[in-house]
Amino acid sequence: MKRRDFVRNMSIAGAGMGLVTPYKIFAQHAPAAKVRLGIIGVGLRGQNHLHNALQRDDVDVVAICDIDPYMLQSARDIITKSGKPMPKVFTGDPHAYRKLLEEKDLQGILIATPWEWHTPMVLDSLAAGVKYVATEVVLGITLQDHWDVVKAAEYHKANVMMLENVCYRQDVMAILQMVRQGLFGELFHMQAGYQHDLRGIKLNDGKPGGGVGVEFGEKAFSEARWRTNHSVHRNADLYPTHGIGPVAEMLNINYGNRFVSLSSFSSKSRGMHEYIVKHGGENHPNAKVKFKLGDMVTTQIKTANEETILLQLDTSSPRPYSLGFRVQGTKGIWMDVNHSIYLEGVSTSSDEWEEAKPYLEKYDHPLWKKYAKDALGAGHGGMDFFVLRAFVEAIKQQTPTPMDVYDAAAWSSITPLSEMSLELGSQTVEFPDFTGGQWMYRENRFE
Amino acid sequence: MKRRDFVRNMSIAGAGMGLVTPYKIFAQHAPAAKVRLGIIGVGLRGQNHLHNALQRDDVDVVAICDIDPYMLQSARDIITKSGKPMPKVFTGDPHAYRKLLEEKDLQGILIATPWEWHTPMVLDSLAAGVKYVATEVVLGITLQDHWDVVKAAEYHKANVMMLENVCYRQDVMAILQMVRQGLFGELFHMQAGYQHDLRGIKLNDGKPGGGVGVEFGEKAFSEARWRTNHSVHRNADLYPTHGIGPVAEMLNINYGNRFVSLSSFSSKSRGMHEYIVKHGGENHPNAKVKFKLGDMVTTQIKTANEETILLQLDTSSPRPYSLGFRVQGTKGIWMDVNHSIYLEGVSTSSDEWEEAKPYLEKYDHPLWKKYAKDALGAGHGGMDFFVLRAFVEAIKQQTPTPMDVYDAAAWSSITPLSEMSLELGSQTVEFPDFTGGQWMYRENRFE
Repeated sequence: MKRRDFVRNMSIAGAGMGLVTPYKIFAQHAPAAKVRLGIIGVGLRGQNHLHNALQRDDVDVVAICDIDPYMLQSARDIITKSGKPMPKVFTGDPHAYRKLLEEKDLQGILIATPWEWHTPMVLDSLAAGVKYVATEVVLGITLQDHWDVVKAAEYHKANVMMLENVCYRQDVMAILQMVRQGLFGELFHMQAGYQHDLRGIKLNDGKPGGGVGVEFGEKAFSEARWRTNHSVHRNADLYPTHGIGPVAEMLNINYGNRFVSLSSFSSKSRGMHEYIVKHGGENHPNAKVKFKLGDMVTTQIKTANEETILLQLDTSSPRPYSLGFRVQGTKGIWMDVNHSIYLEGVSTSSDEWEEAKPYLEKYDHPLWKKYAKDALGAGHGGMDFFVLRAFVEAIKQQTPTPMDVYDAAAWSSITPLSEMSLELGSQTVEFPDFTGGQWMYRENRFE
Repeated sequence: MKRRDFVRNMSIAGAGMGLVTPYKIFAQHAPAAKVRLGIIGVGLRGQNHLHNALQRDDVDVVAICDIDPYMLQSARDIITKSGKPMPKVFTGDPHAYRKLLEEKDLQGILIATPWEWHTPMVLDSLAAGVKYVATEVVLGITLQDHWDVVKAAEYHKANVMMLENVCYRQDVMAILQMVRQGLFGELFHMQAGYQHDLRGIKLNDGKPGGGVGVEFGEKAFSEARWRTNHSVHRNADLYPTHGIGPVAEMLNINYGNRFVSLSSFSSKSRGMHEYIVKHGGENHPNAKVKFKLGDMVTTQIKTANEETILLQLDTSSPRPYSLGFRVQGTKGIWMDVNHSIYLEGVSTSSDEWEEAKPYLEKYDHPLWKKYAKDALGAGHGGMDFFVLRAFVEAIKQQTPTPMDVYDAAAWSSITPLSEMSLELGSQTVEFPDFTGGQWMYRENRFE
């Protein structure tokens, strides 16, 4: 059965199912042999996914698209080196990806472009009839973006998965196992964030590879071409998903639980300016740029099940990398910053931290036990292997993706809500319910 | 000159001084030989201060007061053992302390009673003419309590010092030195809190010493007699000062800076109930008690100088003790939970934590260098020695206390403000300015 016939059948089969989420109709179909994948955006992040896709025997990369000749050439080199056939290449203007979407029999689209392009590209992919769309984080910019994608995915009965790789981090998956086995008791508080000194990413010298410099926008290389403008113009938790994804899985957000309200506080903004002055001098034009993003944005979230979640964005000052995970329940606590755990009645010394490592090894997730060797070369400590695998497997099995459009919308809506809270003087604002009440009935399908 | 004459002279001298803080008039007076100290409340905490006061050559404990015969006897034993003369003992009813305040020539009063007694006892001490009043944390219960004490201290031109001992913790004082020397650059974010499993303190078997049990209120021993009721009836950061004190000193709160707004989030409440069921069974009457205090209360504060402060209260679940300090500036970061520090251009490995210990040793505070030996037996790792010493030295020198009534009010007002925020669904609420605008002009006198 060809994809388009299959899609038509699905639409008929799904028509009378009312509130049932569209993916349920996929289950009985036989696995496809090879997944025909198109990749929109082959900058540094897209090249990473491209490389991982080329390693897989069950994927044919049939089309790629980018507007940057340098990045396209790097992508071609990666493909040539892999020995796989060269896909069709689309380029020329920012909407060249629409030509790519006219390709027949595309089974999956993977999007790795600047944040502001995710929503339009997902929407166009869905409109073109693609039933599996994966996008890099975040899903959209505004709250309306998130609603648009949710409604389009529902209308087209298609899967939209955000490629939140940290959900597959080895320690995070082990802790998820422990949470599900009740070792922490009933969870009541979680912490996470994105604490990563990005000054050298958001600012560089514009040369290929991005050496030390103070350029951003058109004069810069890679992410600094677009990402930095968000720090200039917006104050918000701009990058919540690496932290919230794993937390949401542990708390079953959208699966019997949901985010209810949020408040953000932001500090002064100093780091980016000081970095520019230090490396470019006071007279560099960028020394006049005012960065709206506070050096620390801390967000609190309350859930329907009365857990509290603390998220921190800390990307403009010198500090060692840490996502700052903390999982706390009535029976114990894990923190990643001190690599420690404490479980009442289990830990040998009362009221004293012990090394988390033995627990992480004992509760290593079956997926990691099975695929650790394949994963380790894939980037970001193996997480990238697993997140791509999850997307590809869902296509092959014609099952829903383990993280779906509601997850993507809930997680990445933290950014516009945080922005709103800060604009209102840190007032507490309400989360929309993208599931339309279905969160009460849905079951968590994450591994 | 006798104390009452001295007070009268002060009142005259101070009359024309307008907004100048009352303590400025003390400076030229000669040091007193021995400080005549009265102690109200000789429960476990008061006995600790009593013991430390008896160790000092410059203090005469001339009066003590308590209503609990067991605690009074313990206090008498401590005094007998010290070889010092027995002070006058006041007891009999909850207002017996007013008789103590009629004693002549009291130079200082130290209050270590249940929280709800601090404000009336401070106010009565001031009304009795005592010019140096120290109280255990917190200063009061309601916002009005805090205003009342501030206004009374101003009216009587007297010093009210909250005995916040953590301001004198050895690592905290070393970090304060580093902050003042600019090693962290410009501060923008701070964290602290009170993360201490108090289940075995808030609940016990009621026997002297307080063994494992599930009683609180009249049937319980020591703190559980009164402290636990605050967890039953109130949801708030009930115990903010150990965390906020050191942070406030580093950020110069009330000295060119002030707290502006606050928001608190609270999790579900499970820990206390589960502990009661575990140790007392489901049929114990206390298993029916509903504890209003969330197992995690997280509070965000914004300052006038645009720093953010995060405070956590986590006292009802199993976890290793940690005040969770984090000091972060444009040049580096310290965290106590992982005993680590990172300073840009100073730390040897880029983007990697290093042990804090060598820095803490290098920047050890002069006070600690001088008094470490005297301090170490004093309780709470030596902090208690320093906080009592500060109070006594201020009396001897007739100088203002290093932490004053405005500090006490600002720090402990976090509790009623947090309570208000939670009652309003985590809305962000404003801090009062207890200094009446003087925070812009005042200079930090902390060591």
